[in-house]
Amino acid sequence: MKSAMELYAEQGFEQTTASDIAERAGVTERTFFRYFADKREVLFFGAGDLQDFVLAAIAASPATMKPMETVSAAMEGVADLLADREFSRRRAAVIAANPGLQERELLKMATLAGAAAEALRERGVPDPVAGLAAETGVTVFRIGFETWIGEGAPESFAECIREALDQLRSLTAGA
Amino acid sequence: MKSAMELYAEQGFEQTTASDIAERAGVTERTFFRYFADKREVLFFGAGDLQDFVLAAIAASPATMKPMETVSAAMEGVADLLADREFSRRRAAVIAANPGLQERELLKMATLAGAAAEALRERGVPDPVAGLAAETGVTVFRIGFETWIGEGAPESFAECIREALDQLRSLTAGA
Repeated sequence: MKSAMELYAEQGFEQTTASDIAERAGVTERTFFRYFADKREVLFFGAGDLQDFVLAAIAASPATMKPMETVSAAMEGVADLLADREFSRRRAAVIAANPGLQERELLKMATLAGAAAEALRERGVPDPVAGLAAETGVTVFRIGFETWIGEGAPESFAECIREALDQLRSLTAGA
Repeated sequence: MKSAMELYAEQGFEQTTASDIAERAGVTERTFFRYFADKREVLFFGAGDLQDFVLAAIAASPATMKPMETVSAAMEGVADLLADREFSRRRAAVIAANPGLQERELLKMATLAGAAAEALRERGVPDPVAGLAAETGVTVFRIGFETWIGEGAPESFAECIREALDQLRSLTAGA
């Protein structure tokens, strides 16, 4: 929701009310609350979809695909969905400025990792490999995201994820 | 604090009061509260020490040591401090049964990763490599921990961490 993100960026998350957001978006407060439980929800809208997407992508991968490839491909798929970089930058800045929102984001990522691990186990990947691949996939996603919203990064978020995975391969190979 | 962990395991975290813990430990409630702000603190006592230890270990590593080696060695050092496996098992079971405590544990690990990344940056490791190595180090620590408190694992926590790092190397090499 662009109007909310603009207001959070302009006047801060704490200072923005649901009423402000509705006004900027040109809708009634009632309409706002039909879609969002509160102003925090605006930032985490679609978190459930994200998880469903990752689970479906992992489940649909060829059986011969290796665990880390499977997870990375799913994360690159998510990246393709998050195409609006300016929106993502604003959202990240709002979250970085608010410890409560950072916690919520952290929980979202941990839940995603847990779900991805479960999806790998269902494909017959044993523990601890399933957990390791899932958590590492989320790390690569997060680091790729930070690169993508930074300055001078490639246009493509998926490319940033592949770069992060390459860097991780060099890091672990040298350790 | 063993007596608290016993009570949490026997009757549940929610049902245990600070007074129960003090009684089991054979101290007054006043003494209990001299050391812990509340019953939750018992589970996270030493979290600050853990972080200080990791930071000091990273800062003291030879300048020639590579980022992933540096972080892994620091995590193995932490593992050496957590020698009581039965205590760790009980603590993990209490946390797994309580979503609020899981969140707190997650935050503790995220804070640790952030601090380790900062310590790497101070050694001249650039981003995104610093963040990637730090977060991966914490993942390897967590997966190694889960192996260690499971059945049939090696006695040594540090060995479980090295195994997790080896598995991660194979995972990323194949992706």
